[in-house]
Amino acid sequence: MDMEKCRSGNYFEDFRVGMKIRHATPRTLTEGDRSLYIGLTGSRAALCTAETNARDLGMERRPLEDLLVFNTAFGKTVPDISLNAVANLGYAEVRFLAHVYPGDTLAVESEVIGLKENTSGKSGVVYVRSMARNQHGREVLSWVRWVMVHKRDHGAACAEAVVPATQAVVPSAWMRRDDYTARVREITAMTGFADLWDDYAVGERIEHPGAMTINDSDHSIATRLYQNTARAHFDGHAMAAGGGRRLVYGGHIISVCRALSYDGLENALSILAINGGSHVNPTYAGDTIACATQVIEKLDLGQGHLGGLRLRMIGVKNVSAASIAFPAPGESRTAHPSSVVLDLDYTIAIPRR
Amino acid sequence: MDMEKCRSGNYFEDFRVGMKIRHATPRTLTEGDRSLYIGLTGSRAALCTAETNARDLGMERRPLEDLLVFNTAFGKTVPDISLNAVANLGYAEVRFLAHVYPGDTLAVESEVIGLKENTSGKSGVVYVRSMARNQHGREVLSWVRWVMVHKRDHGAACAEAVVPATQAVVPSAWMRRDDYTARVREITAMTGFADLWDDYAVGERIEHPGAMTINDSDHSIATRLYQNTARAHFDGHAMAAGGGRRLVYGGHIISVCRALSYDGLENALSILAINGGSHVNPTYAGDTIACATQVIEKLDLGQGHLGGLRLRMIGVKNVSAASIAFPAPGESRTAHPSSVVLDLDYTIAIPRR
Amino acid sequence: MDMEKCRSGNYFEDFRVGMKIRHATPRTLTEGDRSLYIGLTGSRAALCTAETNARDLGMERRPLEDLLVFNTAFGKTVPDISLNAVANLGYAEVRFLAHVYPGDTLAVESEVIGLKENTSGKSGVVYVRSMARNQHGREVLSWVRWVMVHKRDHGAACAEAVVPATQAVVPSAWMRRDDYTARVREITAMTGFADLWDDYAVGERIEHPGAMTINDSDHSIATRLYQNTARAHFDGHAMAAGGGRRLVYGGHIISVCRALSYDGLENALSILAINGGSHVNPTYAGDTIACATQVIEKLDLGQGHLGGLRLRMIGVKNVSAASIAFPAPGESRTAHPSSVVLDLDYTIAIPRR
Repeated sequence: MDMEKCRSGNYFEDFRVGMKIRHATPRTLTEGDRSLYIGLTGSRAALCTAETNARDLGMERRPLEDLLVFNTAFGKTVPDISLNAVANLGYAEVRFLAHVYPGDTLAVESEVIGLKENTSGKSGVVYVRSMARNQHGREVLSWVRWVMVHKRDHGAACAEAVVPATQAVVPSAWMRRDDYTARVREITAMTGFADLWDDYAVGERIEHPGAMTINDSDHSIATRLYQNTARAHFDGHAMAAGGGRRLVYGGHIISVCRALSYDGLENALSILAINGGSHVNPTYAGDTIACATQVIEKLDLGQGHLGGLRLRMIGVKNVSAASIAFPAPGESRTAHPSSVVLDLDYTIAIPRR
Repeated sequence: MDMEKCRSGNYFEDFRVGMKIRHATPRTLTEGDRSLYIGLTGSRAALCTAETNARDLGMERRPLEDLLVFNTAFGKTVPDISLNAVANLGYAEVRFLAHVYPGDTLAVESEVIGLKENTSGKSGVVYVRSMARNQHGREVLSWVRWVMVHKRDHGAACAEAVVPATQAVVPSAWMRRDDYTARVREITAMTGFADLWDDYAVGERIEHPGAMTINDSDHSIATRLYQNTARAHFDGHAMAAGGGRRLVYGGHIISVCRALSYDGLENALSILAINGGSHVNPTYAGDTIACATQVIEKLDLGQGHLGGLRLRMIGVKNVSAASIAFPAPGESRTAHPSSVVLDLDYTIAIPRR
Repeated sequence: MDMEKCRSGNYFEDFRVGMKIRHATPRTLTEGDRSLYIGLTGSRAALCTAETNARDLGMERRPLEDLLVFNTAFGKTVPDISLNAVANLGYAEVRFLAHVYPGDTLAVESEVIGLKENTSGKSGVVYVRSMARNQHGREVLSWVRWVMVHKRDHGAACAEAVVPATQAVVPSAWMRRDDYTARVREITAMTGFADLWDDYAVGERIEHPGAMTINDSDHSIATRLYQNTARAHFDGHAMAAGGGRRLVYGGHIISVCRALSYDGLENALSILAINGGSHVNPTYAGDTIACATQVIEKLDLGQGHLGGLRLRMIGVKNVSAASIAFPAPGESRTAHPSSVVLDLDYTIAIPRR
């Protein structure tokens, strides 16, 4: 009997700084994936909801939802990067570089940009920069993430630590800005809401009125749709053996919160960047998610018809959005109460008057 | 902190007779939505199940399922009309005016046609007529519904009551009839069943043999697919706080019953009208739905190859279809036992010999 | 009241050897069905996951997943063949004769090829050969299955037993072999795995690392997507009345196991045949499925770039894949422990060096 074909992912000592990984396999996204994304998250983004909306906003077709693209691209990296992860520690510099349309194929590659063994000698942190390109080779999404990964052999010698520098906030100069024409202002006729970039104030708090209970099939179907194979989301038997339950994939929580945040941010066009985020506490099936947003910064993108809003979105479980407290800038994130499941810092494009 | 962006829907005193509301936002339906609709309801309508069926029946393409269109259009009205509803009281004059095809975009508008404050002064009934049009401006679906809506301010003064007259039954003269050619008779070769309009008798009872247990994800995914944001279907935490559970969206129950009723009505082509209906008791996840149909009336649509059947479909939970008793005409609907969840009066088009 | 329209499927005495049944109705499969199939099973088959993969492998388009086609075609036969089944006893000679693409329509017919009354006089075994054709009349899938079916009338006289001979293993001469060019070897660049036909050895065991907990909505949505109406999968109320629970459709378990078996069989192109299989024990929602594969035979398909692997895939519930014991050839299948849910013997096409 030959066990060699039971692949078990990379362990900490398998990574080298500079190593490049082409993730298996490319994935074509379609209108079918969009329908499922809407069914699983309740997304109502105007630009993506109707062909007529996209055309009236000056585009040829409606693009796919930003986070459908993000979650699909992310899922591709799991078998190589995080199958043996102890924990997903963070991400940064998530840049949405071009729209993705039904029929487009995403191919994803990663480069190891940092490695740092833990003092325990049992695990280490792997930093990777990943890039998704479409079938024309155009860069559509890039991001950095870092993950704590088990060592296979605790005695394995490891190279000296390399910890890459990342931007705390994606600089506005890095953001794409030429996707939209002045016609984007017509979005208010579609959404029925008048508030544009000019109407948001730094420090303003938006309590999104909806809330959504997560069902087991919701997150399972979503995570499979992204072909994400992380066992913690699927193997209820193993999780129970460890005294736990299946974890809801964090990317699904981001999607649900983003969909809930439509109310109050109706005229957002798309996500330009995710500056950082943490999944503060786990979510399980049966938990009800609510969220609130604080405006952190208003970005002048150098275009008369378009501005950026940097937002802090906090997602909670089983409490109301009204209970969400936004920590003061600089306050430690670890101070979050146990009801907080997501603390996301991201930037959207929105028309200006 | 500015809370103005936490929109909370319209309250009774926000409505005026004659007020027109353009609902956000238009929605393009696709083959992906159809697949999900089949997966969530088990629909087997012959005209919609295969391109070859549609062409063999004399059409260019297969249209989308009627109730996928209805539920999508209905969902669009929720944020403006029924977000603060105490109860959905009824609907009437639901007219299916044209087929909708994958790629079509629905835009929905409503007009307030009646208002009646309750004597309590705490709420009132809002009557609206809604219309869905496709991207060419063609009317595809219209309906009237009335909803009991909370007042924001119990002291607010309200105008004199206006209660619109609606037809108890959609007149056959209002029904579209030119979608089909004589080739529709070929449906019997597809379904393998011979019974056409001529074979149904007024008073005849059809017990549909299937039954379907509703799962939490089934109705959640369906309701999100329709971008229906009514909280009672999604917010399990709030429902539990009120001593309850998430309610299954009534439109999902109609879809499930319609799908179960395929057996016994195999040669139905499409729904022409919903004359009225009530969701007699709530349905929760875990309930098993069964249904039976009684033929109420046979309609001569003035076409040799096509007739109409007015049907009464009663849906029950956790009992067999055999237990369904059809009340005599004129008997009060409130006499239904607690197992009844749906009492729907609707009209289908079906080929004649 | 006329109950004639409450059709209840065929009973044993309704079948005759040589009888042909055209199943209702044809079904068009689309990209929407594929998205749902991926979301429900986690399928990652390289050929089907990206248009670029298919083109790079020398094909014009990506075909639909083999088991999506199988389950859809199988579902069509249920109302006529197995609605009154006591048990699905087995299947054989399942041949995948041509790829099916989004937009193709499957039409399914069956012929009764055998009948054998049970000595009890209460039921009998019905043998049928079924065939799915696409809209061009091309045969895409054929299979034999046998089912134990109730008699309606225990006293009904039945013809003499006819038991058809079937092949224990689909002969390699029956398998299609001209779908692929030498470009299929490029699959290793997509999957990142080097193992091809040459690298598998008869007797080799592959333990697939994943595991998947089945949710109620997962299997319900899948089974409805296939328009399979077998009551045991849907009617929780009736199952509970009989002291049981809804059964997960066996075809869903095959799909889940096949998807899990991607890891270790990354370069499989498609299924050529299912030689036989049995659903050894039932699966219920909440069960966690794992599986392992043993290489049974290596087939020379007479083509330099393509070989066949005959595989035995055993699926288990709530135990690890490591616990799976492959019985020696010839050992009775009834010896399986209660954790085994699937024992499938099938043949795949895979590139050679």
